[in-house]
Amino acid sequence: MLGKDYPGQQCALARSLEVVGERWTLLILRDAFYGVRRFSDFATHLEIPRAVLSDRLRGLVDDGLLERRRRDAGPAGPDVYELTDHGRALWPALFALMRWGQGLDGAPQPSRRFLHAACDSPLDDRGICPRCGVAPKPQDILTVVPDGPSHRSGPVHQALQPARHLLDPLVI
Amino acid sequence: MLGKDYPGQQCALARSLEVVGERWTLLILRDAFYGVRRFSDFATHLEIPRAVLSDRLRGLVDDGLLERRRRDAGPAGPDVYELTDHGRALWPALFALMRWGQGLDGAPQPSRRFLHAACDSPLDDRGICPRCGVAPKPQDILTVVPDGPSHRSGPVHQALQPARHLLDPLVI
Repeated sequence: MLGKDYPGQQCALARSLEVVGERWTLLILRDAFYGVRRFSDFATHLEIPRAVLSDRLRGLVDDGLLERRRRDAGPAGPDVYELTDHGRALWPALFALMRWGQGLDGAPQPSRRFLHAACDSPLDDRGICPRCGVAPKPQDILTVVPDGPSHRSGPVHQALQPARHLLDPLVI
Repeated sequence: MLGKDYPGQQCALARSLEVVGERWTLLILRDAFYGVRRFSDFATHLEIPRAVLSDRLRGLVDDGLLERRRRDAGPAGPDVYELTDHGRALWPALFALMRWGQGLDGAPQPSRRFLHAACDSPLDDRGICPRCGVAPKPQDILTVVPDGPSHRSGPVHQALQPARHLLDPLVI
């Protein structure tokens, strides 16, 4: 059962899984929503073999979810990977999977929280701001890690601890 | 990169993927939402090797997403697999992935639609009924396949064509 295709399945879900169903792909996209953009930062934070990361990033660029480009101004540095509109459209699915995972045994406590940046209200299970009645776009969402024990270290992990807007480029 | 775990990843998303991230698992759950309950019906509809299906169903039972039980009344027949509350709680994530997949190139057209059974309104991108302002539970959702060419046949596929409530047991 190698491969990632689902021959014979006409459903939109099968189509989604052919694009984002491979191991690690959704975690790479999660990091991209958190503002991770550089190959080395993905590699450090996800702790996956570089060959696998390289393969997944290439696939996400080919499928139009990420765009690879030279960094703006400043000294020549590594290319960055950024979510396209098509990639950003996956936010509701990612959020729903995270929310479901927070209810699982063994899920990390306390959990990362997602707030509507405009009013600081926590989003509900559907990613809706209950106060404003809107479904904020990723860039209008603030993510906060409650105080608590952290089992990880490293520069990317540390940089993702303070409250930040989704999609704000991570600077280390 | 065998295995399905994500060591070192504390995120709720990684936790979700350890449970539902394996190949075929989400498609099995999709079928369960459509009312498929028997091993042979999953096998026919998904066209996957029986050993893989058996492994995935066992995993979903072990993880508490499906319950395996003897069929109610009637002649002794095969056991059935039904979604638990924990499994049903995955509906928003499944719906969001389906919705995203409907926007992909090559996605089947016309697409299966999901309506709030109480008022026949199509659900919005977040699975909310825009008329009533509620997020219907799966059993309150009607799924409809618009008329159009179908590339598949078979008894399970045929039985899933008429409008039906999610979770209504499929009878063939």
